[in-house]
Amino acid sequence: MERNVDTFLACDRTFEDAKIVLFGAPFDSTTSFRPGTRFASRAIRGDSFGLETYSPYQDKDLTDTAAFDGGDLELPFGNPVPALEKIEQYTERILRAGKLPCMVGGEHLVTLGAARAVIRHFPDLHVLHFDAHADLRDEYLGEALSHASVMRRVWELVGDGRIFQFGIRSGDRSEFLWAKEHVFTNRFNFNGLEETVRKLSGKPVYLSIDLDVLDPSVFPGTGTPEAGGVSFLELLRAVLTVSNLNIVACDVNELCPVYDQSGVSTAVACKLLRELLIALSKS
Amino acid sequence: MERNVDTFLACDRTFEDAKIVLFGAPFDSTTSFRPGTRFASRAIRGDSFGLETYSPYQDKDLTDTAAFDGGDLELPFGNPVPALEKIEQYTERILRAGKLPCMVGGEHLVTLGAARAVIRHFPDLHVLHFDAHADLRDEYLGEALSHASVMRRVWELVGDGRIFQFGIRSGDRSEFLWAKEHVFTNRFNFNGLEETVRKLSGKPVYLSIDLDVLDPSVFPGTGTPEAGGVSFLELLRAVLTVSNLNIVACDVNELCPVYDQSGVSTAVACKLLRELLIALSKS
Amino acid sequence: MERNVDTFLACDRTFEDAKIVLFGAPFDSTTSFRPGTRFASRAIRGDSFGLETYSPYQDKDLTDTAAFDGGDLELPFGNPVPALEKIEQYTERILRAGKLPCMVGGEHLVTLGAARAVIRHFPDLHVLHFDAHADLRDEYLGEALSHASVMRRVWELVGDGRIFQFGIRSGDRSEFLWAKEHVFTNRFNFNGLEETVRKLSGKPVYLSIDLDVLDPSVFPGTGTPEAGGVSFLELLRAVLTVSNLNIVACDVNELCPVYDQSGVSTAVACKLLRELLIALSKS
Amino acid sequence: MERNVDTFLACDRTFEDAKIVLFGAPFDSTTSFRPGTRFASRAIRGDSFGLETYSPYQDKDLTDTAAFDGGDLELPFGNPVPALEKIEQYTERILRAGKLPCMVGGEHLVTLGAARAVIRHFPDLHVLHFDAHADLRDEYLGEALSHASVMRRVWELVGDGRIFQFGIRSGDRSEFLWAKEHVFTNRFNFNGLEETVRKLSGKPVYLSIDLDVLDPSVFPGTGTPEAGGVSFLELLRAVLTVSNLNIVACDVNELCPVYDQSGVSTAVACKLLRELLIALSKS
Amino acid sequence: MERNVDTFLACDRTFEDAKIVLFGAPFDSTTSFRPGTRFASRAIRGDSFGLETYSPYQDKDLTDTAAFDGGDLELPFGNPVPALEKIEQYTERILRAGKLPCMVGGEHLVTLGAARAVIRHFPDLHVLHFDAHADLRDEYLGEALSHASVMRRVWELVGDGRIFQFGIRSGDRSEFLWAKEHVFTNRFNFNGLEETVRKLSGKPVYLSIDLDVLDPSVFPGTGTPEAGGVSFLELLRAVLTVSNLNIVACDVNELCPVYDQSGVSTAVACKLLRELLIALSKS
Amino acid sequence: MERNVDTFLACDRTFEDAKIVLFGAPFDSTTSFRPGTRFASRAIRGDSFGLETYSPYQDKDLTDTAAFDGGDLELPFGNPVPALEKIEQYTERILRAGKLPCMVGGEHLVTLGAARAVIRHFPDLHVLHFDAHADLRDEYLGEALSHASVMRRVWELVGDGRIFQFGIRSGDRSEFLWAKEHVFTNRFNFNGLEETVRKLSGKPVYLSIDLDVLDPSVFPGTGTPEAGGVSFLELLRAVLTVSNLNIVACDVNELCPVYDQSGVSTAVACKLLRELLIALSKS
Repeated sequence: MERNVDTFLACDRTFEDAKIVLFGAPFDSTTSFRPGTRFASRAIRGDSFGLETYSPYQDKDLTDTAAFDGGDLELPFGNPVPALEKIEQYTERILRAGKLPCMVGGEHLVTLGAARAVIRHFPDLHVLHFDAHADLRDEYLGEALSHASVMRRVWELVGDGRIFQFGIRSGDRSEFLWAKEHVFTNRFNFNGLEETVRKLSGKPVYLSIDLDVLDPSVFPGTGTPEAGGVSFLELLRAVLTVSNLNIVACDVNELCPVYDQSGVSTAVACKLLRELLIALSKS
Repeated sequence: MERNVDTFLACDRTFEDAKIVLFGAPFDSTTSFRPGTRFASRAIRGDSFGLETYSPYQDKDLTDTAAFDGGDLELPFGNPVPALEKIEQYTERILRAGKLPCMVGGEHLVTLGAARAVIRHFPDLHVLHFDAHADLRDEYLGEALSHASVMRRVWELVGDGRIFQFGIRSGDRSEFLWAKEHVFTNRFNFNGLEETVRKLSGKPVYLSIDLDVLDPSVFPGTGTPEAGGVSFLELLRAVLTVSNLNIVACDVNELCPVYDQSGVSTAVACKLLRELLIALSKS
Repeated sequence: MERNVDTFLACDRTFEDAKIVLFGAPFDSTTSFRPGTRFASRAIRGDSFGLETYSPYQDKDLTDTAAFDGGDLELPFGNPVPALEKIEQYTERILRAGKLPCMVGGEHLVTLGAARAVIRHFPDLHVLHFDAHADLRDEYLGEALSHASVMRRVWELVGDGRIFQFGIRSGDRSEFLWAKEHVFTNRFNFNGLEETVRKLSGKPVYLSIDLDVLDPSVFPGTGTPEAGGVSFLELLRAVLTVSNLNIVACDVNELCPVYDQSGVSTAVACKLLRELLIALSKS
Repeated sequence: MERNVDTFLACDRTFEDAKIVLFGAPFDSTTSFRPGTRFASRAIRGDSFGLETYSPYQDKDLTDTAAFDGGDLELPFGNPVPALEKIEQYTERILRAGKLPCMVGGEHLVTLGAARAVIRHFPDLHVLHFDAHADLRDEYLGEALSHASVMRRVWELVGDGRIFQFGIRSGDRSEFLWAKEHVFTNRFNFNGLEETVRKLSGKPVYLSIDLDVLDPSVFPGTGTPEAGGVSFLELLRAVLTVSNLNIVACDVNELCPVYDQSGVSTAVACKLLRELLIALSKS
Repeated sequence: MERNVDTFLACDRTFEDAKIVLFGAPFDSTTSFRPGTRFASRAIRGDSFGLETYSPYQDKDLTDTAAFDGGDLELPFGNPVPALEKIEQYTERILRAGKLPCMVGGEHLVTLGAARAVIRHFPDLHVLHFDAHADLRDEYLGEALSHASVMRRVWELVGDGRIFQFGIRSGDRSEFLWAKEHVFTNRFNFNGLEETVRKLSGKPVYLSIDLDVLDPSVFPGTGTPEAGGVSFLELLRAVLTVSNLNIVACDVNELCPVYDQSGVSTAVACKLLRELLIALSKS
Repeated sequence: MERNVDTFLACDRTFEDAKIVLFGAPFDSTTSFRPGTRFASRAIRGDSFGLETYSPYQDKDLTDTAAFDGGDLELPFGNPVPALEKIEQYTERILRAGKLPCMVGGEHLVTLGAARAVIRHFPDLHVLHFDAHADLRDEYLGEALSHASVMRRVWELVGDGRIFQFGIRSGDRSEFLWAKEHVFTNRFNFNGLEETVRKLSGKPVYLSIDLDVLDPSVFPGTGTPEAGGVSFLELLRAVLTVSNLNIVACDVNELCPVYDQSGVSTAVACKLLRELLIALSKS
C-alpha cells in the first residue's frame, strides 16, 4: 500500500520528470519581530486542498506543469550558517539536474542560500525583488546574516545595478540612501515594472517574493506587517508580467501562519504559488 | 412578561404583516474544505446589534421595511436530502403567502432547496449568482448534492441560459468549459452586470449571493477563501443595481464565523443583508 | 530524490513490515455541534514534530514499534454511507494482512465503518469505549447514522453485554435508561476498569477512544466539550491498563483543531497516540 | 408562523408558569482588567445547543424544571447607577410574582442591583459568595460602584456575619484584613462549606457565583483569570451541596467569551447553569 | 542602571524638550458594542518595535521629531466624568507648556476631555473628524456621555459650522438629519477634503481620528467594524493633506487589539501615528 | 513630567535599593518547535496589571520586596553566542552589586548565559531545574547551543551530581540514560523534592523554572506543550518549598504568549513570578 506523500497541489511528478522543483526551507531564526515562518511550507501543502489546480487567469492547469515537491529541508535552529549551506546544496542539486528551483521560506534570509548556488550557474544573474522592506541593512543588531540584510548580502554576490526592488515601503533612512547608489528601488508599488522587464529581457533572473509586499489586509499572517501594500491582483499581475523573463530560480517567503487564524494568508500564498508555477512552466 | 425574541436587526414584524421573510438554513454537511457555516445565521442576529438600521447609501431605514425573521430551520446533520426538503417546504410556505423569502445559509447547497420551491411558483425563473466559485461540477467525490455542484443542480431545474454568474474566479477546467455552453459566467468581477440587468428586466429572478465573492481580506470568515475578489462597495453596488429587477427570492451564504475571530466577516454580512433587505423593499 | 512522505512521528515502516497500520478518516459530516474533526489526522502528523518518540512512562521508544502510517482516506462530504464503506474496506485490507488497524478520526461515527470489518474477523468482538457522551441514541434529528448514535449502531453488530463504556457524563435520559439493559456504562471516570479488564481477558477487543472523555481544560479542541472529564494521566493510565488485553483494532477520535488555537489539544492527542501505539506493540 | 424565541436550553415555560426566571444582565462597564462579559448571556444561550437537558449527576432533566428565560435587560453603557436600577426593578418583578430570580452577568457588580431587591423581600438575607476575588474594596480608583467592591456594597445591605465567601485567592492586603472583622472568608477552596451550610439552614440565601472561582485552565474566558482555582467537579459539588438551602435568588457572573476562542468557558458556564437550575427546582 | 522606559517608537525626548506630547487615555466604559480599547496605547508602544522610525512617504525620520511619550493616564472604570476630567487636566498641562497634545484612546469619548482643554486655549477651534460613525446622537440609552454622542458634546463646545466630518458611513437617521443643520458631513470618503483644508486655513484645528474610518479589512481590531471604509493609503493621504493646517491638538482612537489576533490593526495604528507625528512636526 | 516606566507589578525600586533585580531576556532563536518566547517579558509586565501585589498564600505583599525591574536586554536574533554574552554580562553586574538576579526568558537556553556568571561567584553552585523536558541532549540538529541541550551545557559548568531535575516527562532515550549517570532526575512530578531540599541545604542554588513543567491545560502558551504536567498549586508549593534554600539566582522561562489567546498562561506566569519574588525576599 502507498505511503502518505504530501505535496503542494499537483506537484506530484518525480524529481526526474519535473522541470520545476519545489521545496520548503523552514528557517526563521533571524526574524526580527514575530517568528514562525518555519511553519509556512507545511501550511501551504495542507491548505492547498482548498484550491483548484486550474487557473482561470492563465487558462492553464497546474496538472500540466511538470513540478515535483521535494518536501522540507531539515534545517538547524539558531544558526544561519549551516542552514544556508543546506539550502545552497539542495539548490545546487536542482540546478545541476537542469531544473528550476522554487523555494518556499521561511524568513527571507533563505534567499541567500539559494542565490549562492544560482550565481555559480548564472554569473550574469539579476534579481527581481518584491517586498515591503528594503532588506539592505549592512547588519542588524550586530548580525550580518539577518532577514533585514539579505538583499545586501545578495548584492555582495551580484554587484551594483543587478537588483530591482518593487513595493518597498519600509527601511531605515540609511538603507534608502545606500540603495540609490547600488540597486534599483521602486517604492510602494509596481510602477515601472514593464520597463524593468524590458531591461532584463534575456538575462537570467532570480525572482524573490517576500509576501509582505501585499497589504496586511490581504496578508496579515506575516512577521512584520507593513500597511500600504499592494493588492493580490496587483501582485498577480506583476508575477505574470515578469514570468516572460528568463527566470532561473524563485522563492516565496515570509508567510507566518500563526498570525492569521483565518487561514486567509495561507490561501493567498497557495494561490500565488499556483499561478507562479503555471506561469513559469509556460516558458 | 415578554419572551426573548431574537431577530436580525429590525426584522420584527409578524409573519402576516411582513413582505419579506428572513430565515436561517444552518446546514454545512457537504462543505468540501472548512465546515462551520451552520453558525452563520445566529452570528448575524447577534452581531447585528453593532449595526444601525439606517442606510446612508439608500437613505432608507430598515425599520420601514416589513420584514419578519422566522429564525432557523432545524435541519439534520450529514444528510442533504431531508435538509433540502425542509428548506423547500419553508420556502413554499413563504411563497404561498405571497412573501419574498430571504434565506441565510449555511453552505451554498441550501440554495437548491429554496430554488425547488421558487421554480414551482415562477417557471420562468432566472438566477443571478454572485460567487468566487462556479459551483458547476456534476458531482464532488461521487456526491451529486454538494456545495460545489449546487448551480449544476439548479441548472437542471431552470435550463440553459437562465443562470448568470458574476465574480467567478475558481473552478476546475471542465466546469469553465461546461459553463460556456450552458450559463453566462463573468469572471472575477461585476463587469457586464448592467447588461445582464437589462436582459433580465421583467423576469422573475432568484438572487443567490455566496459571500466568498468578496475578497478574503474583506471576508476571511468563509470555508474556502479565494484571493482576488471584489470589495464590499463593489458588491454593495452590484446588489443595489440588481435590486431593481423582479427579485422573487434571495439568499446569502457561506459565512463561517469561526474562521474570523475579529467578527469582521459577520459585520460585513450583516451590513450587506441590511442593504439587501432595504433595497428589496423599495420595489 | 526522495518524495515528501508525511507520517505520524516514527510510523515509517512499510505496510508489509508493519504490525500496526495507522490511517486517518477525515469525516465530520454528522457532527451535531461544531464540525472540523476532518483536520485532525493532518494536524496530528504535523505537530508530532514537537514530540519525542521515547516514552518515559513505558520506557520504550516508538521507533521500536513496527508501525506504518497510510495517510488519510479520501472520503466524500455529506454522505456517511460511502464514507463508512471506504473505512470498512481499508480496515478489511489491514486485518486481512494480519495487522492491527489504528484509525484517527474524524468524528466518532467512523468507528462504525471499522467495526463492520473487525467483527467479520472477530465475531466474539467486545468494545471498550472511552467517551464523554454515551452515543447511544437510536437516531439524531431523524438520522440513524450520526456520531450521537454510533455506539447504538455498533451494538447492533455486537449485541448485548459486549460494549463497556467509561467516562460517560452526557446523554439524554432515554440513552441512560436504554444503556442499563444493553451495555455496561461507567459514569464520569474509569472506576471499575480493572474489573472490566479481567472480564475481557482473552477476548478480542475494539478500543474506541473519543478524546472528549478528557476534561475540556485538557482538550478544548473538540466539537462538543463537556465539563467534568478525566485528566490526561487518568486516560493514559486507562490506556496502559487495557493495553494488556487482546486489542484487535482501535481508534482515536473527535480532535477538532480549529477550536484550540494553542495547539494543546493536538499535542495531547499526539502523546496519547504515541503511548497507545507503543503499548499495543508490547503485546 | 412562530417567532424566533431564543432561550437557554429548555427554559421555555411562560413567565407565569415558571418557578425560576432566568435573565441576562449584560453590563461590564466597571470591569477593571479585560472587559467583555456583556456577551456572556447571549453566548450561553447559543452554545447551550451543545448540551443535553438531562443531568447524569442529579438524574433529573431540565425539561422538568419550570424555568423561563426572559432574555437580556437593556442596560446603558458607562453608568452603573441606572444599570443597577434596571436590574433591581426586574428582580423585584420576579420576586413579587413569587419566583426565584437567576441572573446571568455581566460583571459581578450586577449582583448589587439584584441584592437590593432581594433584601427587601428577605430582610434576613445571607449571601453565599463563590469567587477568586474578595471584591471587598471600599472603592476602586475612586469609584464605589465597581466589580472589585461589589461585596463591600452588599455588606452595607446585609451587615456583619452575613456574607460567606469561598474560593477566594486574590485581594489586596486591606481587603483580607477588613474581611476578618465582617465576613466569613474561606481561602482557595470549599473547605468548610458543609459547616456553613449547617449554619445557613433555614435562612434565605442569595447564591452569587463568580465563575472565576474556577481554575483558569477550566475557565479561561474571564476578565481577570487567577491561577490556583477549583475544578469543575469541585464547583459542581459545592453547588449541589448548597442547593438544599433556602436559596431565594442566585447569579452566575464574569464569563467573558472573547477570551476563550475554544468556547470551553461558555460550555462550562452552560453546564453549571443547567445543574444549578435543576438543583434549585428540586427544593 | 536604567529604568525600563516604554515609549512609542522614538518618542523619547523629555517633556521639556518635546514639541509634541503623546499620551494614552485607556478608557472604554461607554463603548456600545465590543469593549477593549483600553489596551490600545500599550499595544501600540509594544508593537512599534516592528516599525522603522523613517517614513519613505515623507522622507523624514521620527527621530528628528521632538516628541515625548508620557505614558497612560490612570483612569477610573465605569464613570466617564472623572475620566474626562483627568484627560482635560493633562491636556491643559501640555497646552500650558506650549506643546501639542496627541492622545491615543481608548474609545472616542476621550476626545471630549481633551477638547474641553483645547477650546479654552483656542476659542476659535475647528474640528476635523475622520470616522465611520457620525457620533452625533444626543444620548445613547439615556447616557449623554457616550462614544456615540461625543461629537454632539464637542459641538456644544464649538457650535455650528465648526465640525468637519469625513468618511462617515453609519449613524441613525436622526443624526444625519441633525448633521445637515450643524456640521459639515462628508459621507463615505475624503472627497472635498482639499476644499475643507482651504476653508480651515489659518484656523486652530483639532484633528480627531477614529481609526474605524478605515475599512475593516485594513483595521478589523475595533469595537464596531463598519464595512465600506477607506484604505490605509487614503487615510494617510488625508492626514498628510491636513497636516499643513494649524493643528493644535489631535487624537487617534478606537483600536481594540483583542479583536485582531494578527496584530495588523495595531501595526496600522502604529504606522499612522508615526506619519502623523512626523507630519505635525514639519509645521 | 514623569517618563513612562514599565515594570512588573511593584518592582519599582531603584537598582541601588533593590535586593532582587528582574530582567527580561527576549531570545528564542534556538526554539525547536514553536518560537515566540521573546514576547514573554513584555506580556508579563503588561498583564501584571490584572494581579494584586498581595499574596494570600504567603500573607506578604510584593510592595515590601525590594525589587527592581531593569527591563529587557537587547539581544541579537539568530546567533546565541552574543546573546548569551549579553545575558552573562548583565547577570555579572547584578551579582557584583550583591543582588539576586531573576531572569524572565525567552527560551530556556538563556539560563546558560546567566549560569556562566553565577558559577564564577558561587563555584559550589547547585541547580534546581523544574521542567517537562530533560534538556540534556549533547546537540540538536548539529547545534550545541539549543534550548534542548541547555542543561547539558550547564552540566559542563557544574559537573556531576549538581543538577536536580523535577517534573521531567520528555526526552529521547539517550538523554534519560545519560541522566542516570550525571544528574538527579525525578520524572513527572515533585516527589522527593523535600529530600533534595535537605541535601541542598546551605548550598548556593540556581533555580531554573521552565514553565512547561505545568500541564498544558494550565499553561498552553508555550512552544512545546507536553501533556501530563503538574498543576499550578503543585508548582507553587514546590517553589515555596525550595525558597528556604540559599537561592542565589533564578529564572522563569518558555512563556510563548501568542499560543494562548486567552492570556491565561501569562496570568499564570505573573502569579508564579509574584510568589517567587515574595518568597525569595523572605530569606
